Amino acid sequence: MNIIIIGGVAAGTSAAAKARRNDEQATIKIYEMDSDISYSACGTPYYIGGEIADIDALTPRDASFFKKKYRVDVLTQHEVLSIDREHKCLRVKNLLTHAVLDEHYDKLVIATGAKSIVPDIVGAKSENVFYLRNIQQAKQIKQFITTHQPKCAVIVGTGFIGLEMAENLKTLGIDVTIVERLPQVTPFLDADVAVHAQDYLEKKGFTLALGESVVALHGEPFVNQVVLQSGKVLDTDFVIMSIGATPNVSLAKETGVAIGVTGAILVNTKMQTNIADIYACGDCAEQYSVLTGKPLYRPLGSTANKTGRIAGDQITGGNLTFRGILGTSIFKVFDMTVAQTGLTEQEATKLGYKTIICHNIKPDRPPYFHGKEMVIKAVADKETGRLLGVQIVGYAGVDKRIDVFATAITFGALASDLSHLDLAYAPPFSTTKDPVIYTGMILDNALNRGRPLKDANDLENTLVIDARSQKDFDKGHVEGALHVPLEALREQAKTLDNTLPIVTYCNKGVTGNAAQNVLLNLGFQDTFNLSGGYKQYVKSKKSRNV
Amino acid sequence: MNIIIIGGVAAGTSAAAKARRNDEQATIKIYEMDSDISYSACGTPYYIGGEIADIDALTPRDASFFKKKYRVDVLTQHEVLSIDREHKCLRVKNLLTHAVLDEHYDKLVIATGAKSIVPDIVGAKSENVFYLRNIQQAKQIKQFITTHQPKCAVIVGTGFIGLEMAENLKTLGIDVTIVERLPQVTPFLDADVAVHAQDYLEKKGFTLALGESVVALHGEPFVNQVVLQSGKVLDTDFVIMSIGATPNVSLAKETGVAIGVTGAILVNTKMQTNIADIYACGDCAEQYSVLTGKPLYRPLGSTANKTGRIAGDQITGGNLTFRGILGTSIFKVFDMTVAQTGLTEQEATKLGYKTIICHNIKPDRPPYFHGKEMVIKAVADKETGRLLGVQIVGYAGVDKRIDVFATAITFGALASDLSHLDLAYAPPFSTTKDPVIYTGMILDNALNRGRPLKDANDLENTLVIDARSQKDFDKGHVEGALHVPLEALREQAKTLDNTLPIVTYCNKGVTGNAAQNVLLNLGFQDTFNLSGGYKQYVKSKKSRNV
Repeated sequence: MNIIIIGGVAAGTSAAAKARRNDEQATIKIYEMDSDISYSACGTPYYIGGEIADIDALTPRDASFFKKKYRVDVLTQHEVLSIDREHKCLRVKNLLTHAVLDEHYDKLVIATGAKSIVPDIVGAKSENVFYLRNIQQAKQIKQFITTHQPKCAVIVGTGFIGLEMAENLKTLGIDVTIVERLPQVTPFLDADVAVHAQDYLEKKGFTLALGESVVALHGEPFVNQVVLQSGKVLDTDFVIMSIGATPNVSLAKETGVAIGVTGAILVNTKMQTNIADIYACGDCAEQYSVLTGKPLYRPLGSTANKTGRIAGDQITGGNLTFRGILGTSIFKVFDMTVAQTGLTEQEATKLGYKTIICHNIKPDRPPYFHGKEMVIKAVADKETGRLLGVQIVGYAGVDKRIDVFATAITFGALASDLSHLDLAYAPPFSTTKDPVIYTGMILDNALNRGRPLKDANDLENTLVIDARSQKDFDKGHVEGALHVPLEALREQAKTLDNTLPIVTYCNKGVTGNAAQNVLLNLGFQDTFNLSGGYKQYVKSKKSRNV
Repeated sequence: MNIIIIGGVAAGTSAAAKARRNDEQATIKIYEMDSDISYSACGTPYYIGGEIADIDALTPRDASFFKKKYRVDVLTQHEVLSIDREHKCLRVKNLLTHAVLDEHYDKLVIATGAKSIVPDIVGAKSENVFYLRNIQQAKQIKQFITTHQPKCAVIVGTGFIGLEMAENLKTLGIDVTIVERLPQVTPFLDADVAVHAQDYLEKKGFTLALGESVVALHGEPFVNQVVLQSGKVLDTDFVIMSIGATPNVSLAKETGVAIGVTGAILVNTKMQTNIADIYACGDCAEQYSVLTGKPLYRPLGSTANKTGRIAGDQITGGNLTFRGILGTSIFKVFDMTVAQTGLTEQEATKLGYKTIICHNIKPDRPPYFHGKEMVIKAVADKETGRLLGVQIVGYAGVDKRIDVFATAITFGALASDLSHLDLAYAPPFSTTKDPVIYTGMILDNALNRGRPLKDANDLENTLVIDARSQKDFDKGHVEGALHVPLEALREQAKTLDNTLPIVTYCNKGVTGNAAQNVLLNLGFQDTFNLSGGYKQYVKSKKSRNV
């Protein structure tokens, strides 16, 4: 059997290795246009920033590795020009010799990956406008910085590549301005969570231009001005353009391979395309949501490994199938970590879910053991009680919590299941009630135990009660809030207007919840706790540009 | 309603707070014998070692906090002498004034906690033989060290208190000898995992006396010699005795409260004892296993918080119930972390499970991003494919993986589910194939895909093939192994004896698996991969004292 794989990065090499593990006899060949294979593009920002000294560390495996270990032939700098689906034949060009050859396949795997989106504006392809998805591009950026010693940079886009680059350029002493089309950073977060990340970025000295599109890049041969839609002009020494990725599907399209709604190749759970014996995997293939079953497109190395392995298994008689993704993602900027899994509130609402959300602000470890606060926004389905998604911004231990939430969501967890988890506790690792468990308690209380929450943007026509100390109240409070410290609430409850819904709050939610309970138990039936307390209120207000 | 709670640490105060949240009218009172309440005993080793400067950080809440926030009366230094279950009445003694009073209860919660096991040997109660479960004991140890500037210590027991103390005494420059009755450290691990921790402890300069019991402590007034069963005598300046905890159940017993098989108070999922209106929670109450439904006793702050909250809910009309534990635990010693959840192989075997186990040795992050290896031993049920338990020894990211495994086990995960999880990937946090995902792949391959594993202690009557390089083979190899590097295996396969089961191996398992696949695909049906490769083999051999 002749197996040919187009593309030799994460998915292609995974498919090849898995195919060989299953099948000793098949001929397995990988064609890769680039000169590098099996590399970690995710590590490139840290090579540019200097944390990874040697870029070879990002390409630990070369063609000889695959030959030796798996008897797989990897031909780099070979472009597949066309696929003849009738005769199961490829036309391949050697980019060095320009020789063209035809080759038969029995099973074909398309793993052509994705490419950076290049905006259709003046200057987008200038020499000092960089895109970052592979080793060669990383080398170019590093080379530029070394040669030109730039003082400032503009980064366009606030996905993880953009923000990881922001950290790494800053580490090199470069002033960084970050431009984002949306009025918030990190498009995959709800605005009221993104604002926590935004505040951190501002505190770290990044200049943010939110709600701004780039309309032109001026300067010859080197771009030195970035023109924004508002008319504002940013002077710069170079530009990192990180506004997303788009799947490499032109070859597939020309072959008649069906494309999904996301623009990536349509595959079933066996990674089969619509054409017999043609499979697709990795960043060129469409995924789907574990939660909704609907198409998703999130080009990530972890998923590419999974889908590559499945393709390799299927083409050699295996029965591994893909189970979809949650769109889990994570990145760090200096010591801040941002992570997300499942649906945001915005996505869930758009999909028609009636949601219950909570903002849980808790330290990752006890305060006496270096604990630092993280904010967890969790979204649950009001009707079924199922956990739909979680977003976290924090410092340490964010990765742990997002992975626990992702695991729970995968197994169909109800929000009320979370507080029962027996998670590992010791002071160097967590609090006695882990933030995950607390999140479950808050959601369960809201969903099932008559302790509803109010969001900071939903306070109209309510009586808001600040249950904190005089000192806290004086420092700042919710507009129009009535100050009744918890200790005085039982007494003063008699005097409260009971025609309006009441919203209690404190700094983060615990005392607010105590106040809510006092009022509920005293008969004020329509009483809410402010989700995330005053801390989140301030952030939410900022995120709405109020 | 009159609610009385006996015990004011984790469970008792959780019960009180929850009761108040549910019920505004009840009178809630806590009696605590000790002078401290609501403290974090788990933090005490780090107070002694100096990482926590002020012990007050471990007792953030005092009686006035509970009065102010929850209108709960906390009476410290009050001992409940007896319970009259007929008349629902307590006899309570004020330990300061010696006054005795009788008090009626409507609902009674026993949260009397646990105490250190004091061995029945000479000298066990000497002045410089310390036990550590509370703030006062921590202060005594600190005081002793400050006053006497000891040079050496003997720690008896290798549970987490013992080993956390080992780190903290070493930090203070004290030479530490650790005595353990079992032939391994950390009793809650399988021996072949414990040996990884043992090697680390030895490397860090701890002296270990394994398989040794203490028979006497000599010296007056201060113990200065620890006599072991073997006759060996250890000179010491003081002793930390950490051989486990036993529930405080004497009061409960005298009252006729039923005790479970573990020696702790028998409760149902509502935390009710056998006596009407008497509940128990926290370290004095028995728990049960999520996996088996059978009784367990693991006194931990995280569980105490859960069961206290449930008791508080139930006594005020709530319907929260306990769902059991996995016995998840974690501790660190310097930069090594040891964690475990669910069943060990030994426990699973004892319970009658037919198990499949794997040893997965993988870095927590990419090698180019400070990744350090962890060893994961996972146990699955051969019949159902269900994941039963996981043990991990490593450096960074152990807490994350154990929590993901604990969550998966709670939701009844099959081993084959793990590799499909969409966990958060970025180089600062994990590898593209997270160790959890790899563990799932290995177990799935062994359980369902004809890639069985052999354990290092099960190599008799097999043909063992070392698939590594000549250099690796020469450095050390499995006794009697035939050296056939992977590259040569296809060729040399013809010459292999095919009457014996074959076991392939490499350093950690990946190339061993490749070799296994080659042989399986060439028709050698009875071919195994050595679990954890040569690295684990060396450890397993040591753990059997071979």
